Amino acid sequence: MQISISLDSNSEHSLQNQVFESIREQILSGHLKSGMLMPSTRILNEQLSVSRNTIILAYDRLIAEGYLFSKKTVGTFVNPNLPEDSLMLMDENSKNTIKRVQDKEKSTPKRHPVAFQGRVQALFNPYREKLDVDFWVGRPDPQSFPINIWRQLTLKNLSHSGSSMTEYHDPAGIYDLRKAIADHLRPARGIECSPEQIIIVNGIQEALNVVSRVLIKQDTPAVMECPCYQGAAYVLESYGAKLHPVPVDSEGLDVNLLPDKETALAYVTPSHQYPLGATLPLERRVRLLDWARDTGAYIVEDDYDSDFRHQGSPLTAVAGQDRYGYVIYMGTFSKSIGAALRLGYMVMPEELVEPARTAKALMDNGHAWLDQAVMMEFITSGAYLKHLRCIRRTYLSRRDTLIQELQNNFGDVQLSGLEGGMHLVWHLPESLPEAKEVQQVAQDAGVGIYSLPAAAAHDFGKKGYRERALLFGYSSTTEDQIRDGIARISNALK
Amino acid sequence: MQISISLDSNSEHSLQNQVFESIREQILSGHLKSGMLMPSTRILNEQLSVSRNTIILAYDRLIAEGYLFSKKTVGTFVNPNLPEDSLMLMDENSKNTIKRVQDKEKSTPKRHPVAFQGRVQALFNPYREKLDVDFWVGRPDPQSFPINIWRQLTLKNLSHSGSSMTEYHDPAGIYDLRKAIADHLRPARGIECSPEQIIIVNGIQEALNVVSRVLIKQDTPAVMECPCYQGAAYVLESYGAKLHPVPVDSEGLDVNLLPDKETALAYVTPSHQYPLGATLPLERRVRLLDWARDTGAYIVEDDYDSDFRHQGSPLTAVAGQDRYGYVIYMGTFSKSIGAALRLGYMVMPEELVEPARTAKALMDNGHAWLDQAVMMEFITSGAYLKHLRCIRRTYLSRRDTLIQELQNNFGDVQLSGLEGGMHLVWHLPESLPEAKEVQQVAQDAGVGIYSLPAAAAHDFGKKGYRERALLFGYSSTTEDQIRDGIARISNALK
Repeated sequence: MQISISLDSNSEHSLQNQVFESIREQILSGHLKSGMLMPSTRILNEQLSVSRNTIILAYDRLIAEGYLFSKKTVGTFVNPNLPEDSLMLMDENSKNTIKRVQDKEKSTPKRHPVAFQGRVQALFNPYREKLDVDFWVGRPDPQSFPINIWRQLTLKNLSHSGSSMTEYHDPAGIYDLRKAIADHLRPARGIECSPEQIIIVNGIQEALNVVSRVLIKQDTPAVMECPCYQGAAYVLESYGAKLHPVPVDSEGLDVNLLPDKETALAYVTPSHQYPLGATLPLERRVRLLDWARDTGAYIVEDDYDSDFRHQGSPLTAVAGQDRYGYVIYMGTFSKSIGAALRLGYMVMPEELVEPARTAKALMDNGHAWLDQAVMMEFITSGAYLKHLRCIRRTYLSRRDTLIQELQNNFGDVQLSGLEGGMHLVWHLPESLPEAKEVQQVAQDAGVGIYSLPAAAAHDFGKKGYRERALLFGYSSTTEDQIRDGIARISNALK
Repeated sequence: MQISISLDSNSEHSLQNQVFESIREQILSGHLKSGMLMPSTRILNEQLSVSRNTIILAYDRLIAEGYLFSKKTVGTFVNPNLPEDSLMLMDENSKNTIKRVQDKEKSTPKRHPVAFQGRVQALFNPYREKLDVDFWVGRPDPQSFPINIWRQLTLKNLSHSGSSMTEYHDPAGIYDLRKAIADHLRPARGIECSPEQIIIVNGIQEALNVVSRVLIKQDTPAVMECPCYQGAAYVLESYGAKLHPVPVDSEGLDVNLLPDKETALAYVTPSHQYPLGATLPLERRVRLLDWARDTGAYIVEDDYDSDFRHQGSPLTAVAGQDRYGYVIYMGTFSKSIGAALRLGYMVMPEELVEPARTAKALMDNGHAWLDQAVMMEFITSGAYLKHLRCIRRTYLSRRDTLIQELQNNFGDVQLSGLEGGMHLVWHLPESLPEAKEVQQVAQDAGVGIYSLPAAAAHDFGKKGYRERALLFGYSSTTEDQIRDGIARISNALK
């Protein structure tokens, strides 16, 4: 017998693959019947003018997968044991329609429902390619990425790494990096912790996910700053947390409004409140810690951009002021080095170390080894501190230029969040339209500036800052770009 | 007035830091009273014999953090606005005990309870350092790690990467890598999918975590192979799944025993059943797909070591046989390149793409950029296929040596899982003790071989394979090591 197979020599698929697929299709469609004798490989190779070996290999694979079977000295047959039910019958009216599919589709195909409910946080401006100057928030300066030393350390670690690259490591992170971080945190943030308390994660977002897994179930109450970082609110709510927003004023979280009732955690950004930029004063920190002890709530301290303190000395973290182990501290290298590294860490109170380590292992078996090894040496060699000093200077002078340009173009501007970090907030004067509109005008002029919702800030639908505040990230724009950008906005608004 | 500060010049903390901490402690302990006038920096610098600048910087920081405040021309004071409640009173009987802490500790400090319940899967043998020959499962050969090309590609990508390293990227993974994987899967596994359906994860474990988030809530039913991979069972149960174990026989999952009732998913390893090693025959695959359509369940196909097919041609994945989009396909580079890379992928049915992408974003904002860029070029340059061909040969001859040595030492051994993969199973003869005991005897002789529970396999407490099966991973042991290891076991058992 002859069977119909058409081959396309220009196809990206090999001839062997085309023969295999064509026969497989014809068996599944019922065109080649169960138990039928197949043409010999010699006949097929003559018919198709391809090498006999190609046919033999295609047959071998069809046999291996159970579509065909061969009887010695007799020949090769279509497997008669394929469940009848699996074969699709061709609709006689149309070669391309398969009856079985139609039948199933009429009775809407069953699908187990999706259990997950969640919304996704903003990670970058979707229009970024169209902008000449982008004041996106929390993005480090690309020119300052420590590329030479990073290459050096990467090369060094890759030269003796066969077994390090092929094995699994501790899901909490390699010990030497955790020790380097613990040693860094003591002087830098006033935090006393052991390497065992540290878990390497791929950034604040994963740290929040670990915390959610460990502490949150359906309707668990959690206190949030209002406004706050979107990614925190969205991940907590995706695990069913009942979010209790507590307003932020010019000094940060209003600790007098913390709820009396039982709460799993309070998510806070004391160094540089996201998005408004206040630094939480000592009195409020002390009250916050007392509240934690009274209610049993954990304080989740997101210290995302504390490395950049432009006025005054660096502040001790709340975790450094905590004497009773109520603070879960989160740090990241996304802001100080680069977000694409996906490297951060969390410091857990003793009793949460084991649950967090287990949650992290079940989530992803731990972080890639090479980046951890490189980061460890980057810290212990002193290169990290040097890098921080260098970008601090850069960011400070960019901040100053931005303030200057806003004042030059708009007079007596009301700004917040100046003391540190990588962005500031302009509270719009009444003479200007709403934040969303100013954002659009700027975008049309090729400049990215951001109202709260656009900048991954969440305000629980409350009116106020959303309408009148604009965020300017200044860490990844040069001073020339800052001057150009603010001038463009000023002109566009006239 | 004078205050007591003792400095240690050998301390790892700077003098400035020691001054800061000492004063901070004394304020918090109530030793320095609210509103009290502090000694001037000049007096303190004379008292302590350290530079005046050191004292000024320490004071600046104490002022910045709100512990002190200064009045022009008057002096520096302890902040009287510190909440009384926050100050810890020294116990008069003991300098080291703080009353407040005692009081609180008497009434056991409140802690919000941990919501998470989970157990951790085995990732490596905890005694690995003590072994001379380790037949641990699923570990690639360290000597075969493609270190030269990996270095080359890493260097190349690091040379022009300032902005790529500092920015966030698509949480589902960089598009070019997803396209490279889609192009690889078509000929290699018979899977037709678009790059948009692919989500880059850090390995099978993260893929399972994404699936759990998307499909599982409390008491959601999920079918598992019995025995199966621990990490899959543990992550699903940590989300509350009700696991329904279906027995595995010598041909893999017994599809006749699949439950009739509604099920969210069936987790399967058709290429090389973990742990027993069978390859699921075509008839069973077809029945499995039919079952999925009848019940609406998704098939979660873990194709962890399908790259190594030692007998017969490579098999099309179940995902390649699926015409209705019921299969969630998972692949990993942990077995084919190295587990420490933490790089894998999943192919999602259309309707699950968006929920999975959102879950991944909320979990960790996506994967590190550099490894993705390197992997993309590793695949598109053809180096990946070349690497696979090379290690396939290595693993095949190691497998053959292992079979040979087992036969030489133990006669007519009963083995399973030989057709492919990186490990095989020895079903112990009655003359030998239980698997756990043989494992211990081997370990005492410096050789790692593994009973099911030790090798991250889960059998739902069912008796059977646990007592009589031993796993031998052969991919990371040289042929000399294999000969040595089996001889040692043989001697030790005599």
